[in-house]
Amino acid sequence: MSATENSSPTPACSPDGRDPAPSLLVRAARGEQVAHPPVWFMRQAGRSLPEYRALRVGTGMLESCRTPDLVTEITLQPVRRHGVDAAIFFSDIVVPLQAAGIDIEIVAGVGPVVASPVRSAADVEAMPRLSAEQIPDITESVQRLVCELDGVPLIGFAGAPYTLASYLIEGGPSKDHARTKALMHSDPATWHRLLSTLADISATFLLTQLAAGASAVQLFDSWAGGLSEADYRAFVLPHSQDVFAAIADYDVPKIHFGVGTGELLAAMRDAGASVVGVDWRTPLDEAARRIGGTVAVQGNLDPALLFADWHVVEREVRRIVSEGRRAPGHIFNLGHGVLPDTDPEMLTRVVELVHSL
Amino acid sequence: MSATENSSPTPACSPDGRDPAPSLLVRAARGEQVAHPPVWFMRQAGRSLPEYRALRVGTGMLESCRTPDLVTEITLQPVRRHGVDAAIFFSDIVVPLQAAGIDIEIVAGVGPVVASPVRSAADVEAMPRLSAEQIPDITESVQRLVCELDGVPLIGFAGAPYTLASYLIEGGPSKDHARTKALMHSDPATWHRLLSTLADISATFLLTQLAAGASAVQLFDSWAGGLSEADYRAFVLPHSQDVFAAIADYDVPKIHFGVGTGELLAAMRDAGASVVGVDWRTPLDEAARRIGGTVAVQGNLDPALLFADWHVVEREVRRIVSEGRRAPGHIFNLGHGVLPDTDPEMLTRVVELVHSL
Repeated sequence: MSATENSSPTPACSPDGRDPAPSLLVRAARGEQVAHPPVWFMRQAGRSLPEYRALRVGTGMLESCRTPDLVTEITLQPVRRHGVDAAIFFSDIVVPLQAAGIDIEIVAGVGPVVASPVRSAADVEAMPRLSAEQIPDITESVQRLVCELDGVPLIGFAGAPYTLASYLIEGGPSKDHARTKALMHSDPATWHRLLSTLADISATFLLTQLAAGASAVQLFDSWAGGLSEADYRAFVLPHSQDVFAAIADYDVPKIHFGVGTGELLAAMRDAGASVVGVDWRTPLDEAARRIGGTVAVQGNLDPALLFADWHVVEREVRRIVSEGRRAPGHIFNLGHGVLPDTDPEMLTRVVELVHSL
Repeated sequence: MSATENSSPTPACSPDGRDPAPSLLVRAARGEQVAHPPVWFMRQAGRSLPEYRALRVGTGMLESCRTPDLVTEITLQPVRRHGVDAAIFFSDIVVPLQAAGIDIEIVAGVGPVVASPVRSAADVEAMPRLSAEQIPDITESVQRLVCELDGVPLIGFAGAPYTLASYLIEGGPSKDHARTKALMHSDPATWHRLLSTLADISATFLLTQLAAGASAVQLFDSWAGGLSEADYRAFVLPHSQDVFAAIADYDVPKIHFGVGTGELLAAMRDAGASVVGVDWRTPLDEAARRIGGTVAVQGNLDPALLFADWHVVEREVRRIVSEGRRAPGHIFNLGHGVLPDTDPEMLTRVVELVHSL
């Protein structure tokens, strides 16, 4: 792909940058009648696939996410193998932070590690912003994918402000997010400035993918489920709303997901999502009731159950599709990401089963 | 304490082995009118206290739990320091497993490690049972504590069958419990035999503590919150019910707790609990509504908030006490265990505040 093509907002092979005819994913997200739900899997592009592991040998995670050849191939792998109804852009929650200039790495067996954690008003003031010019590779990867996918929708990806903040404040993964919650409650002014900065970075990352032709987005708030609804609404929701407001002009499915968010489903809808992701703890019909029956749901097979016998998986998939039919739109997915040791054959069989129902 | 005293079912200093006058804990658990809720903290005996860290130098966790001098002193430390309304018996979920003869250790920085994980019908058949004769030290520790506590109730402690099973099947801590869930669903017969065996071990451990004079019990199902309610009811509840049924003759508060169990609160009541513990994700008044208003609740200050400024902690404690007054009985506690780096002074101030409300 030439530099000229890179600078174009949309790829040559799809002039409007979106599906010419609405895809199954888009129709389900809109609550239209569909024969069966669309199906994709969080982390479908990744370690469960031997072809992914082979491709990643010798290349670090963040480097992989910034290399269009790798991003394109890794994003396409599960589409080819499983026949899923959407591709999820291969990236990582911390990619836009690193691209903005924050010193952050992904350490194998640990996760993201931040060189200088952000814990004071001065730390927040010193934070860089992200501009689209810093991520031409993201534009290139998305444009190439939209061409290669030939009508299969590409879901853009970003981490939500709260989850990004938790990594920056803790300095890495945390079980209890004690420093994050302490800052949130003890210094709300600094907290809100930090989340506002991060909302801007998330929005820029999503806008870049949408401008390049992504057909949908998912905003991941991985750790929001550790918050009470009151704290979520006071300290997190306004900033997630800002992210969704920044992309409101794009008429695409806007998926919002966090694990363990049974108490937060209505609040996450209020962020501006058109699809709310649900983990396996809350049945989809109950989730739709809590959300108020106004937006679609996504989920929610327990990824651990893919290690059980097929008859168990089949029974659970049928139950979930049935419960999803009582929601105003359903996108079939797991209730969290594919576990690394998952047998990919199980995923392929789930896709075939969902398509047969 | 002599061998003769050891063999006595109740200590000399408290003939009936229970509080002569019902304690604040017992009265709150029964839903009686109390001036303020009783307060204790999960993991109040442990790493947050410098006197605990000093005492533990050179002694492994499980050895500490089997040494009456240490158990007694460690259990008493937070009662002396904080003035809490109950002591929690210092132990570990895997103590009864090791006492029964299972090769299990606690590795610093890792958690419980099982030498030979339990994954087949033959593994389950080969499992040992626990008899009271294998844990005379537990009887001695409880008897000594009941004397020393001088009316402050002692809460007995055991891990619930599901959580014990998860350690035995996974071989150690696990984020996703994939092997546990796979066995549960793929081989229900083996699963139920395993949980039945573990219910027997849990019950023996609790009965030993009750016979020695404990005034209440808490059954911890640490990982139950990773299950859907349907799976919990089908695969876990019958065995937790067996544990509570085994101790039904003791008219004491029977507390049942797991983290992230907002969807399971009514099911955990159905196990036979008289008090349901609630984490910080679900407000206590909403928890009482889900439980059906028939039993008391325990909780639910987010332990991470103890790292925030005091004015934040004070506001949260007042809110929780206020919400707890709309439940039929409330025992103030955290929503999970005390984090190791917690400033113990914060815990003391929380006790003083709750007692002033």
